[in-house]
Amino acid sequence: MLEQTAANRPTLEAVAARAGVSRATASRVVNGGAGVRQPLVDKVRAAVDELGYVPNHAARSLVTRRHGAVAVVIAEPEFRVFSDPFFAQQLRGISRELTSNDIQLVLLWVENESDHERIARYLAGGHVDGAIAFSLHGDGRLPALITGSKVPTVLGGRPGAEASPALPYVDCDNRGGAREAVRHLVSLGRRTIAHIAGPSDQTSALDRIAGYHDVLVDPDPELLREGHFTEESGARAMAELLDRRPDVDGVFVASDLMALGALRVLHERGRRVPRDVAVVGFDDMETVVRASDPALTTVRQDVEGLGRLSVKLLLKLLNRPAGHVPASVIMPTTLIRRASA
Amino acid sequence: MLEQTAANRPTLEAVAARAGVSRATASRVVNGGAGVRQPLVDKVRAAVDELGYVPNHAARSLVTRRHGAVAVVIAEPEFRVFSDPFFAQQLRGISRELTSNDIQLVLLWVENESDHERIARYLAGGHVDGAIAFSLHGDGRLPALITGSKVPTVLGGRPGAEASPALPYVDCDNRGGAREAVRHLVSLGRRTIAHIAGPSDQTSALDRIAGYHDVLVDPDPELLREGHFTEESGARAMAELLDRRPDVDGVFVASDLMALGALRVLHERGRRVPRDVAVVGFDDMETVVRASDPALTTVRQDVEGLGRLSVKLLLKLLNRPAGHVPASVIMPTTLIRRASA
Repeated sequence: MLEQTAANRPTLEAVAARAGVSRATASRVVNGGAGVRQPLVDKVRAAVDELGYVPNHAARSLVTRRHGAVAVVIAEPEFRVFSDPFFAQQLRGISRELTSNDIQLVLLWVENESDHERIARYLAGGHVDGAIAFSLHGDGRLPALITGSKVPTVLGGRPGAEASPALPYVDCDNRGGAREAVRHLVSLGRRTIAHIAGPSDQTSALDRIAGYHDVLVDPDPELLREGHFTEESGARAMAELLDRRPDVDGVFVASDLMALGALRVLHERGRRVPRDVAVVGFDDMETVVRASDPALTTVRQDVEGLGRLSVKLLLKLLNRPAGHVPASVIMPTTLIRRASA
Repeated sequence: MLEQTAANRPTLEAVAARAGVSRATASRVVNGGAGVRQPLVDKVRAAVDELGYVPNHAARSLVTRRHGAVAVVIAEPEFRVFSDPFFAQQLRGISRELTSNDIQLVLLWVENESDHERIARYLAGGHVDGAIAFSLHGDGRLPALITGSKVPTVLGGRPGAEASPALPYVDCDNRGGAREAVRHLVSLGRRTIAHIAGPSDQTSALDRIAGYHDVLVDPDPELLREGHFTEESGARAMAELLDRRPDVDGVFVASDLMALGALRVLHERGRRVPRDVAVVGFDDMETVVRASDPALTTVRQDVEGLGRLSVKLLLKLLNRPAGHVPASVIMPTTLIRRASA
């Protein structure tokens, strides 16, 4: 492309004339091409290339969105993606926000480690304008591969140390929410407060553990059990807790789904909730909370809102000059008091 | 590209030499590029283009799989995709089969009519080698748009009349399975047998209705109610049935999820199953059947197997000479007798 000054820059009018379309059509194509027939889109894009048209700042965003598609990568296997309502809710927010911008969502998930390179190849292959990756695990190679693919990416959830610090992210205040949950159990007079945590290779789990430790200095390590954010792992952790510390009278569980499993085991073992053991969850997933008996006290995070926010952040990233990374966003959490604590 | 006879065709060796790589590497790239670093992939592909290399018949398949990605289009909104286990199970089969062929699955779903054109643009945009589309609705424009996108496509489910007959499909024997279900109710001595059908814009629903009519000639139209394959719509249809034909003593329900809703209403209205009303479902979805009380008699279809089969059929389609469409496949169904009928 020739060096150009502002004075001799080709205009959108020139592009329209070269392509043989109206200025409005040329503008729509430069703005993403929505509603324009493919042959016209091709003609306008060819004219843009031939003339070396550089859109002004306001229009530049559109050129960066040439594929009209964004990849959403969930670093979890299919059985988790389609059984944990957390993912559906996050995808609902992402899907709605992308659709309202006429951008196609393409979903990819990770069945096992051997998928990582193929996903990175797809991302690097020029099929999408950007990516949103969530539920990353610290021990995987995916964060590095995503960074290496050079596709503008926003993370759902604070990245671990191994991910590039240049990737912006959206997250909820995991640590603050956990603190509030544990403080609530303390305020109820509970003395032996356990924590059923998520997997220790995820920052959301680590941050909730940190919040637990912020309130309870030096608790018995037996009171901290690790699950995998599944109902079954919550049940298993609760059973272990009751075996090792039968005097437990409060449990902060790092997800509603795990709390459901914990409540089931407490019921089976004849412990009354909240009288014998008070239980606080995390997430406030409607479908899960509806199934809980008694109604679950939990830390609410706006999962759909986080999904929407991740898209907004990605669009900012795509529309900023190279090297300018928008600031990450942390959403607040709220304790929702119901019957279980 | 020059006209070439077999004698002067460039060989794979020539491609390797031009690209400066080993024959093995060139072969791997021509076979999809798995495990080869991107710079080498680019070099080999450039050499293929420069020399006009035409792979032999055995290798031709690989050239048609240049993106290493297949789109799966589910013509349902997100809330259905992530709440009905049918989709998770079909995706499990598709995902496993694609992964074992080192092909990336990219999932797209359809929130509303306005998404159709964007999806067609994505498919036509050269981002995927093929597509698998399922849960199509006859009244939508999607089948025509998919055909128009020229991307090799396999359908999950028999297409309606408006879709191109050239698209191969996989399906289960919906009509035969329905016949077996209704015959079973007849064999139990049931006289007033109703059918809760799926939406009449889907061939799977229509074929099951046809099977019902194969066995019961000219039943009271009040006995045929339409649902939407959701639990809630099954409950609503059952309530209507009991209001209009309180003498109903057998119901064939076109999906397990709808049967779950129907069982709930029968229980609420004090009807004993199977004594007062015998119920047969369709699908044999493990998670749904586990939640049913009494255990659900149902028509089993191998949904995961159908998913795998759709990938195999697509790979056949990609590897055949243009114009050769492989035959569609119908999988058999099996009646699984449990307590509800």
